[in-house]
Amino acid sequence: MNSFGNLFKITSYGESHGPGIGVIIDGCPSGLAIDMEFIQSELDRRKPGQSNIVTQRKESDSFKLLSGIFEGKTTGTPIHIFIPNEDANSKDYAEWEDIFRPSHADFTYWEKYGIRDHRGGGRSSARETAGRVAAGAIAKLLLRQSGINITAYTEQVGNIKLEKGYENSDLSLIESNPVRCPDNEKATEMEALIREVRKEGDTIGGVVACIISGCPAGLGEPVFGKLHAALASAMLGINACKGFEYGSGFDGVAKRGSEHNDIYYSENGKILTKTNHSGGIQGGISNGMDIYFRVAFKPVATIMREQETVNKAGESKKISGKGRHDPCVVPRAVPIVEAMAALVLADYWLLAKINDIHF
Amino acid sequence: MNSFGNLFKITSYGESHGPGIGVIIDGCPSGLAIDMEFIQSELDRRKPGQSNIVTQRKESDSFKLLSGIFEGKTTGTPIHIFIPNEDANSKDYAEWEDIFRPSHADFTYWEKYGIRDHRGGGRSSARETAGRVAAGAIAKLLLRQSGINITAYTEQVGNIKLEKGYENSDLSLIESNPVRCPDNEKATEMEALIREVRKEGDTIGGVVACIISGCPAGLGEPVFGKLHAALASAMLGINACKGFEYGSGFDGVAKRGSEHNDIYYSENGKILTKTNHSGGIQGGISNGMDIYFRVAFKPVATIMREQETVNKAGESKKISGKGRHDPCVVPRAVPIVEAMAALVLADYWLLAKINDIHF
Amino acid sequence: MNSFGNLFKITSYGESHGPGIGVIIDGCPSGLAIDMEFIQSELDRRKPGQSNIVTQRKESDSFKLLSGIFEGKTTGTPIHIFIPNEDANSKDYAEWEDIFRPSHADFTYWEKYGIRDHRGGGRSSARETAGRVAAGAIAKLLLRQSGINITAYTEQVGNIKLEKGYENSDLSLIESNPVRCPDNEKATEMEALIREVRKEGDTIGGVVACIISGCPAGLGEPVFGKLHAALASAMLGINACKGFEYGSGFDGVAKRGSEHNDIYYSENGKILTKTNHSGGIQGGISNGMDIYFRVAFKPVATIMREQETVNKAGESKKISGKGRHDPCVVPRAVPIVEAMAALVLADYWLLAKINDIHF
Amino acid sequence: MNSFGNLFKITSYGESHGPGIGVIIDGCPSGLAIDMEFIQSELDRRKPGQSNIVTQRKESDSFKLLSGIFEGKTTGTPIHIFIPNEDANSKDYAEWEDIFRPSHADFTYWEKYGIRDHRGGGRSSARETAGRVAAGAIAKLLLRQSGINITAYTEQVGNIKLEKGYENSDLSLIESNPVRCPDNEKATEMEALIREVRKEGDTIGGVVACIISGCPAGLGEPVFGKLHAALASAMLGINACKGFEYGSGFDGVAKRGSEHNDIYYSENGKILTKTNHSGGIQGGISNGMDIYFRVAFKPVATIMREQETVNKAGESKKISGKGRHDPCVVPRAVPIVEAMAALVLADYWLLAKINDIHF
Repeated sequence: MNSFGNLFKITSYGESHGPGIGVIIDGCPSGLAIDMEFIQSELDRRKPGQSNIVTQRKESDSFKLLSGIFEGKTTGTPIHIFIPNEDANSKDYAEWEDIFRPSHADFTYWEKYGIRDHRGGGRSSARETAGRVAAGAIAKLLLRQSGINITAYTEQVGNIKLEKGYENSDLSLIESNPVRCPDNEKATEMEALIREVRKEGDTIGGVVACIISGCPAGLGEPVFGKLHAALASAMLGINACKGFEYGSGFDGVAKRGSEHNDIYYSENGKILTKTNHSGGIQGGISNGMDIYFRVAFKPVATIMREQETVNKAGESKKISGKGRHDPCVVPRAVPIVEAMAALVLADYWLLAKINDIHF
Repeated sequence: MNSFGNLFKITSYGESHGPGIGVIIDGCPSGLAIDMEFIQSELDRRKPGQSNIVTQRKESDSFKLLSGIFEGKTTGTPIHIFIPNEDANSKDYAEWEDIFRPSHADFTYWEKYGIRDHRGGGRSSARETAGRVAAGAIAKLLLRQSGINITAYTEQVGNIKLEKGYENSDLSLIESNPVRCPDNEKATEMEALIREVRKEGDTIGGVVACIISGCPAGLGEPVFGKLHAALASAMLGINACKGFEYGSGFDGVAKRGSEHNDIYYSENGKILTKTNHSGGIQGGISNGMDIYFRVAFKPVATIMREQETVNKAGESKKISGKGRHDPCVVPRAVPIVEAMAALVLADYWLLAKINDIHF
Repeated sequence: MNSFGNLFKITSYGESHGPGIGVIIDGCPSGLAIDMEFIQSELDRRKPGQSNIVTQRKESDSFKLLSGIFEGKTTGTPIHIFIPNEDANSKDYAEWEDIFRPSHADFTYWEKYGIRDHRGGGRSSARETAGRVAAGAIAKLLLRQSGINITAYTEQVGNIKLEKGYENSDLSLIESNPVRCPDNEKATEMEALIREVRKEGDTIGGVVACIISGCPAGLGEPVFGKLHAALASAMLGINACKGFEYGSGFDGVAKRGSEHNDIYYSENGKILTKTNHSGGIQGGISNGMDIYFRVAFKPVATIMREQETVNKAGESKKISGKGRHDPCVVPRAVPIVEAMAALVLADYWLLAKINDIHF
Repeated sequence: MNSFGNLFKITSYGESHGPGIGVIIDGCPSGLAIDMEFIQSELDRRKPGQSNIVTQRKESDSFKLLSGIFEGKTTGTPIHIFIPNEDANSKDYAEWEDIFRPSHADFTYWEKYGIRDHRGGGRSSARETAGRVAAGAIAKLLLRQSGINITAYTEQVGNIKLEKGYENSDLSLIESNPVRCPDNEKATEMEALIREVRKEGDTIGGVVACIISGCPAGLGEPVFGKLHAALASAMLGINACKGFEYGSGFDGVAKRGSEHNDIYYSENGKILTKTNHSGGIQGGISNGMDIYFRVAFKPVATIMREQETVNKAGESKKISGKGRHDPCVVPRAVPIVEAMAALVLADYWLLAKINDIHF
């Protein structure tokens, strides 16, 4: 199950310490102009080494477009994006060949497959998400043509939380700090916490918020293909993700219906809501308001401090982190959340073309 | 997108006020003994009118097994379960033909399809979930053969929350109260709140917790088919669901890696965890511990109090609820959460059969 | 694998001697007017007992539309069509419980599932195709809106073959004889052969030809979703089908490229072909010419004459046909071929909506 | 639709004149030893320039394994095989940018996508099948472990046909001649015909026969997933394929049921057939006998002789073939037929693992 999507479908491959990782996009409509610099800029937002609060592995994440493009435009055939691995230090992992890191995929991959590429986490490495970001960049190019924009940011790191909502934040500030929080004061606090945690050889979790604006009403499929169910599946498919909520989310459970409900005619004759407790989706189908959701990420499993673990032989072992790892995934998760959201929206935008048929 | 699953796949059909609703199961292995009373008992846990804190629509939800069973056992061919509608009062809805109820699927279905069966919500009615519960009962029968059990309960109604975890609760109490909370004191409080809310013509949300025990390590697919991503998609596909978290969930974001990480060898030589912050899943694959997750439900959109809304003609309208509705979905959501979890687990249990192949 | 199609998708269920058989259509666009008489007339073309050269089982094949239709139009939600079994004589099959009929699915179902509903062939009965015909009727209604028409006829029974092609035949004659051959002289010969074969307690095969006219250029998907590959899969999915060819087919292998190739500009500025050796499809995509193909059916396995066979206990057995069976499937296969072709075309017509997107 | 398969699934990408073509295999079980030389030898059977009766494009078809393998074994994660293009002469195609070759995908791709990579046929080039052959080699390695073997050969070129069946042929001779016919006398005739056709600047079609031996009973899915329907879809998905038949095929239509039917107990207690008119498949499920089928290929559309065609501007044009092309696809189609058959069988072998579950 390394494919995602229905009509705009991606297939991902590759390991952290092999020749590289990549993605095939099948189903992108033809004639879409491909902005290579935009794809690279999206990859740059995810790449390691971009600031001193993320992993220092040196990867340029320069991509190669190997098929599906002719004279700068998509041809409707599969688009292959390949991202070579440049800085894999497999010897860092040599002594971990028989060890299962705690709370990591090491043990479960072993149980499932009976074999695993232990170098850098192999297939379970978050490096795999680079392909998703590249594919998501193409999805964003498609969505832009219809005025749909996707913006994510860091809302929480550990206990430091941006209390105000996205509608009261200046989203233009997101890329102005390494944490990707649209409030420079909070960003400074979050950054300080990440540095402190890193100094302790430890890691910390966080929350990413995401807003999809410009989405017309009518995207989404009833019953099992609800738009928010597809978004949830996309988000929970990101490494270290532990939770998803949209609109009023978990807080909404304490509300009364009379307080939560919301619909009205605006002055210009459009059907809108005032509170957007629905998060832009009702009955699984977009209602034309902003779609927004929150995604929880746990602290990265690989820490630098010594900890107890086990090996294949049934012995307790002490390990300390080798390799280069993020003290907090959230800053680099922001573009991944956006990419997965873009993949869902591009897919549902194509599915909704069937709605344009009127008998 | 009215189908769900890969190898154990269901297809759902039917509307609230048509002849009935139903489900086809395709992919159930042959030779499974079908316990008709068990299927009915599961439907009874979901059916309307079961207590005085739920909707009073009178449906026996007696099901008919129309294919796929021979001499009491599955034949490997599609199983069709049909549940007739017995108590649809379509005239309750006559005056709502042109009205969009606030925060309901009325408006979005209209935007998407340009036509809708407005009677009782049509396809968007939670009545559709009866088919899922019946299919889930068969999935449970399959899983039981492998010792996998699924138990859900009401953890929160409005602000009343069961603070202790499932491991400290007496799960045998769940069915002893109409709220389905494994603590009779809390249940009484929750029940009182639901009565109060109903008296006000209002509705309230809640949280359902779910535990899957006996699941072996190795279920789940890497990258896009992570076991928790499938569970999230299943839960967000239930009407009124607003959020999903597993293991440490949203609370886990404030934890340090050193605190969150967890693995050890037990005395009897099994690899276990102490805290189960991972919620039984690591890297998208089950690790043999209990799987547990929480699901948030918003207050039901249809309330009895008068509220402002809009109609197709672009006029503001006042409506009061007609029909019979739940003041709180959570008590009846418990068996639906279990059913959807069972469908995911049965599917992944079959997918994991490929893991048994060893070259 | 009881589902077929991508966007216009059907799921089939039911056995020959259970309560009935049926089909769910998922993905039919909304607003399509449903002509109930047309659906019944299509079922009547397939139903048993329609003439004295087909099986005499008495089934009215009256269908019930159980979901997805509101005020005579499709709503975009799943359409369920149920066709009850009315004349199942299960006692005819009692003594066959342990017997495998030669060249029948009896033995292979047993090998695969270890259990089987032996009554009337259970799931392997051609009665299952009634659901496909009903679904195909709805697909035809959709295609008609775009001017696409599908016509099949009997081209060959045993060695009696209509040598002239469809372009030289009067297709209005097809329904004027029970064999469904557009040449009454040949039809009389074919009918005589079928009667003779039936008198001998035997069966005979035949060939059905099918023409799809009015199909615009651009339907079909490259590589694995070629339009002719989908048609082949659809046809080989019909019981007793042994072969498929389109355009020049098997005869084309002896042609030279210079003779086979064909394209020109017509006087009214359209790109056409003269010979249509391509059968309306080039590179897997329709080219705007008539699509035509031929489908081979073997003689029905169940014969009335005594023959040698085996039972589960490992004994050789003699059996003679019980039940009521067709001496030749071809006359009733004509509407089934049309229905499966309609399902493929409706699906690909929806898929091609993506082609209408031009960036 | 550039993916094929259910559990053993491939995704294909690439164009004739881009950087290369390739394939991702998703779903191959772990622990399978990968024989690199075998994969290369399969590619060598398909590669251009292998003899003087095929295209003289110079491609080594050396492949790169970029993921999914660790220490010589599959890990259960996606396997990526990349085959660079080494000898693409795009200038051969410069003057064809606006021309549609007759009976080629040029026109239909243009109609569908409104843009096309005209160089060497772009995505519609048969070069794309190299990836399938590489993936098919891995499928063969998997099937060998279960004793399933797949052998195809040239049965017919133009009017020259090998009349004897595979059971009377010495299949060890297939690779002893460039035509891949298991009869050296016929092979010489076929080769002479191909040379003659090539001298005339023309092309010719042919038939490939394929035998699958060692397949156990029980592979195949009822109704829409019949094993022969999957094989038909696979074969019709090969460029230039016009027809498919299995077992008695089109010839079977003239047989009586009493003559066609066949089942018996062998002396060693196995259920077998004498004639194998069923072609190893009954009711869509393998019966344990050899599976055999025949595949028709038309003459290649690109010929060297001058012929009439049209261009985008609506003018009639004369063209003569440029580039390097096969006078007859059949010799190189043999390994492609085997590869597609292997992909189907590997997929169905995995699907049939569900049958091993016995409740």
